[in-house]
Amino acid sequence: VTVDLDALCARIGPLDETAMTAARDRQDRLTKPRGALGRLEDISIWLSGAQGRCPPVQPDRIRVVVFAADHGCAAAGVSAYPQEVTGQMVANFVAGGAAVNVLATVVGASVRVVDVGVTHPPPGLPADVTRYRVRPSSGRLDVEDALTAGDVRQAMAVGVQIADEEVDGGTDLLLPGDMGIGNTTPATAVIAALTNGDVAALVGRGTGIDDAGLVVKRDVIQRALERVGPHLTPVDVLARIGGCDVAATTGFLLEAAARRTPVILDGIVSAAAALTAAAICPAAAQWWVAGHRSTEPAQSAALAALRVEPLVDLGLRLGEGTGALLAVPVLRAAVATLTGMATFDEAGVSDHDE
Amino acid sequence: VTVDLDALCARIGPLDETAMTAARDRQDRLTKPRGALGRLEDISIWLSGAQGRCPPVQPDRIRVVVFAADHGCAAAGVSAYPQEVTGQMVANFVAGGAAVNVLATVVGASVRVVDVGVTHPPPGLPADVTRYRVRPSSGRLDVEDALTAGDVRQAMAVGVQIADEEVDGGTDLLLPGDMGIGNTTPATAVIAALTNGDVAALVGRGTGIDDAGLVVKRDVIQRALERVGPHLTPVDVLARIGGCDVAATTGFLLEAAARRTPVILDGIVSAAAALTAAAICPAAAQWWVAGHRSTEPAQSAALAALRVEPLVDLGLRLGEGTGALLAVPVLRAAVATLTGMATFDEAGVSDHDE
Repeated sequence: VTVDLDALCARIGPLDETAMTAARDRQDRLTKPRGALGRLEDISIWLSGAQGRCPPVQPDRIRVVVFAADHGCAAAGVSAYPQEVTGQMVANFVAGGAAVNVLATVVGASVRVVDVGVTHPPPGLPADVTRYRVRPSSGRLDVEDALTAGDVRQAMAVGVQIADEEVDGGTDLLLPGDMGIGNTTPATAVIAALTNGDVAALVGRGTGIDDAGLVVKRDVIQRALERVGPHLTPVDVLARIGGCDVAATTGFLLEAAARRTPVILDGIVSAAAALTAAAICPAAAQWWVAGHRSTEPAQSAALAALRVEPLVDLGLRLGEGTGALLAVPVLRAAVATLTGMATFDEAGVSDHDE
Repeated sequence: VTVDLDALCARIGPLDETAMTAARDRQDRLTKPRGALGRLEDISIWLSGAQGRCPPVQPDRIRVVVFAADHGCAAAGVSAYPQEVTGQMVANFVAGGAAVNVLATVVGASVRVVDVGVTHPPPGLPADVTRYRVRPSSGRLDVEDALTAGDVRQAMAVGVQIADEEVDGGTDLLLPGDMGIGNTTPATAVIAALTNGDVAALVGRGTGIDDAGLVVKRDVIQRALERVGPHLTPVDVLARIGGCDVAATTGFLLEAAARRTPVILDGIVSAAAALTAAAICPAAAQWWVAGHRSTEPAQSAALAALRVEPLVDLGLRLGEGTGALLAVPVLRAAVATLTGMATFDEAGVSDHDE
C-alpha cells in the first residue's frame, strides 16, 4: 500500500472564493460594528470557503480520529509513564472513559481510535481499532531510524484511508488526535527538523516529566537530529525521527484537504504532522485551523511556522484531540452568528457607514 | 429604593472549600497526567466550590442579562454610531436578531434585556424590559456628573433586584451583558479612576472609531478624571463618571455573589462593574470568572487588577454578553471532564505516581 504524493497534492484545491466573498459581505451587513465579532468572523468566512456555501451549515458529523502508537524512545526515559499505558488508554478510549470521549460527547462529536503502532495492545480490542496497525512501536530515534521507508508509506496510506472512510461516511469536520507514551519526543524532533529550530527552546515536559527528565529528552532529540543531519525530505523526516502516528496523521491531513473537508488541529502531534503535510503540499494548510495552544513549546513553534493562531489557549497538555474539541464551540458560534443574526436592514438598526 | 451595601457585603460568603478539595482530589485520580487539562481543572474546582458539591452539575439555566443605557458623552463624538442605535438594538435583542441572542441559543442560554437608561426606547418594548428604567441617558461626564447619588442607588438596586429575580427563578449561572452607544467611555473612565491608570494607554476604539475619534474620546475621559479628581469612593465613581449600566451591573454582581451564584464576566462594561464591586466588597470577586479578553485595553487592565485571566481571547469587541457566552462551553467542558472521566483505578490504567 502506497500513497502517490504527487497525485495526492494535485487533488488539493483552494477554498471556494465565491462563498468566502459572500460570507464577508454578509458579515458586514449584520447588526454589529464591522469586525466586532473578531475571529468568529474569520472562522465563519473560512468555513464558508471550505463548505463552498454561504451561509455555512453547522457541522453535522464531527469525528475525532485518535492515532495511537508507541515510540522506541520511551526506553530512553523521555516519559513519566510506562509504555504499557498507551494500550491501556486505547482500551479507555474504546470504553469511553477518557477526556477525549467526554469532551467529544459534550460538543456532539464522536471518537474513532486507530492503532497504528501500539506495543502492548490489550486483549479484546475491536478489529476496527487494530486492523490498521503498521508495526509495534518504532526504532529508538536517538540511535536508529524510527521507521523504515515502507513503514512510512504504509502509515501515510492508513491516514489517507481513514480520511476517505470518514468523508465517505458523511463526516464534515475532522479532528486528528493522538495517544502514545513518548510521542512528544518524535513530534518535537520532527518540528525541530522542519523549522531548523533550537531543541532546547522547543522541548517540553509532555505528560509532566521533571527537570532531569527534560534534560534526557532534550539530549535524545538533539542526538537524533545530529544522527540524521540536515536537508531531509519531509517523508525522510517521518521515517528517521518520526513515528507511525505522525506519518498517519500527515496522510490523514493531506487527504482531508484533497476531499475538501475542514480540519481542526490538536496538539503537538497534529502540529508536527501539519507541518510535514504543509512541507509536502503547501496548499493543504488552508483546510486546517489550529484548535488550541498546548503548553509544548514545539507545538507553538509549529503553529507559528504554519502562520496560524490557535482558537483556544487553556493550558492543556493532554493531546488525544482534546484541544481540537475545545475549539468546536468556536466554530459553532461562528456559523450561528453568520447564519442567525439579523442584518441592519432587517432589524431597522442605523448603520453608521450608510 | 436603596441598597444597604454593608449589609449586602456581609451576606457574601466564601466558596465551599470542602467541595473544592474533593474536586481537586478527583481531578488527580482521572485518567490523564495531573494538571494536563490545564484551566479546565481550575474551572471545575471553582464551579464545585460555587455550587457546593463535587462533582458539580452542568449549569441548567444560564441567563444573560443585558443592561442597556445611553450616555451623555455620546454628544461629544466618542462613538461611531448615533445614540438612537441603543434603542434599536434593544428592539433587536427582543426580536432575537442580535449576536447575543444567537450565541445564547447555541450554548443553551437565554437573554433578558433590562433598560436602565435608554434615551430613545422604540415603541412597543415589553414592560419587563422598560419597567426598570432609572432615567434617560446620563450627564456628559467631561463637563458634569453622569448620575445623581439617587440615580446610582436606584440603578444598583435594580441590579440587585434582577439578580434576585433570576436566582429565585432558578438561574444557576449569570452573565452580565451591556448595550449602549458611548458606553466604553464611562467604563474606561471608571477603570482609569479605580486603577489610577494612564488614560492614553487605556482608551480603545469601542465600536470602531477612527484615530480622530480616539483623540476625542481620550480627551473626554481625561477631562472627566480631572474634573472629579482622585480619592473617590467606588459609589462616587459610579455617580460622577459612570452610568446606569455600570451601576446596575455592580449591584447585580454583588447580589449574585451574595446569592452564591457563579458569574461569567463579559467585556469592558462588566469589567468596570466588577472592579467597582470588588472595591466595595473584595470577597465578591471569587464568585466570578472572566469570560473573554476584549480588544479594549481598559478591559484587560481591569481584569489584571482583579487578577483574573480570561478564558477566551478571540478579538471580540461587541459587548452584549457575547464574550461571556463564548466561555460557557469551557465551563461545560470542565464539568463534563470532572464528572464523566474514568479514574486510573476504574480504567485499569497505570498511574506513575502510585
